[in-house]
Amino acid sequence: MGTYNDEINIKTNGEVDIIDITSQIQEIIKKSKIKNGIACIFVPGSTGSITTIEYEPGLKKDFPRALQKIAPKGEHYDHHETWHDNNGHSHVRASLMGPSLAIPLIDGKLIHGTWQQVVFVELDTSPRNRNLIVQIVGD
Amino acid sequence: MGTYNDEINIKTNGEVDIIDITSQIQEIIKKSKIKNGIACIFVPGSTGSITTIEYEPGLKKDFPRALQKIAPKGEHYDHHETWHDNNGHSHVRASLMGPSLAIPLIDGKLIHGTWQQVVFVELDTSPRNRNLIVQIVGD
Amino acid sequence: MGTYNDEINIKTNGEVDIIDITSQIQEIIKKSKIKNGIACIFVPGSTGSITTIEYEPGLKKDFPRALQKIAPKGEHYDHHETWHDNNGHSHVRASLMGPSLAIPLIDGKLIHGTWQQVVFVELDTSPRNRNLIVQIVGD
Repeated sequence: MGTYNDEINIKTNGEVDIIDITSQIQEIIKKSKIKNGIACIFVPGSTGSITTIEYEPGLKKDFPRALQKIAPKGEHYDHHETWHDNNGHSHVRASLMGPSLAIPLIDGKLIHGTWQQVVFVELDTSPRNRNLIVQIVGD
Repeated sequence: MGTYNDEINIKTNGEVDIIDITSQIQEIIKKSKIKNGIACIFVPGSTGSITTIEYEPGLKKDFPRALQKIAPKGEHYDHHETWHDNNGHSHVRASLMGPSLAIPLIDGKLIHGTWQQVVFVELDTSPRNRNLIVQIVGD
Repeated sequence: MGTYNDEINIKTNGEVDIIDITSQIQEIIKKSKIKNGIACIFVPGSTGSITTIEYEPGLKKDFPRALQKIAPKGEHYDHHETWHDNNGHSHVRASLMGPSLAIPLIDGKLIHGTWQQVVFVELDTSPRNRNLIVQIVGD
């Protein structure tokens, strides 16, 4: 029984970039030598999110379009008055989606469906360097 | 300290079926002999979600109605052009809600409120057989 | 390797109160003597949620406003017919956001961004006393 920690470093293209990190998580699981347990993927930062999606070009357009309806860019946000910036919608979307994903590993393999990939969703307006935390607990 | 893994097999009625899996998780915890830790409930697949809800007939209508407003069925989704199917809204809703739930167990019992049940939410358009993963880590 | 469990007791002001619980989680981690692992923060109850946000006055107005658009207070919910109450929107919002957060701890420290705090979001209509569960697994 033990824990293993690593980071995934990615460069995003800003709003709304969806990046497949499935194989990078699998690599970290392999290095960890932990066979069975739970992996927690976490973004330190309040304008990004981790979820799963079928990673294909259509949904990469559909999902941002849905977010634009839920928390529209271009509207007034009180957040803008605090910092004189323009990413209030990014924060609202991130808090709604959540910053982390808990996902099982079994026999050394990350569990996911064939048409299901783990993704980081960049919700901030500008390109960012992101260091995602992967924390594994198991044996 | 250890890990325990099992599956919950359910048959859903398609869109938007909400199924109470609380007692099945509790059964698995009992079999695991793990008393304190974290359970991760995960759906392998990109058109379903795990969350909690007060499992009563009213909310079983209210929640689907809210999802229809957030990501409407019947609208255009680019996902439909990729596969010539019609479940773009299912995917968008699933990515927004997330595929997993992390929940504590204490003294051999799943923690939840009296009026709070753990549910699988079928977001796909057709009835599906689902094998949900329950991964427990603790001692 | 082990587990540690504690509670955070808070009093909320009702709809939509957002309460920073970051330092209380950090205190519990310190007491646990667990250095590396995963913490699961969970609300037992179906009208609250845990997430992260940049805890500043602007977003404390923006986030509730977004929730009002997603699942409006004041509309008809079938839930009201079940119990003759008026918090259908609270339940829908809670199920959408989810009741828990999985978050890594490394070298005895809760991982989060500089401008990212862990918060409890009170979604119920009235002030409530909440006992949030913090379950830590690691070594």
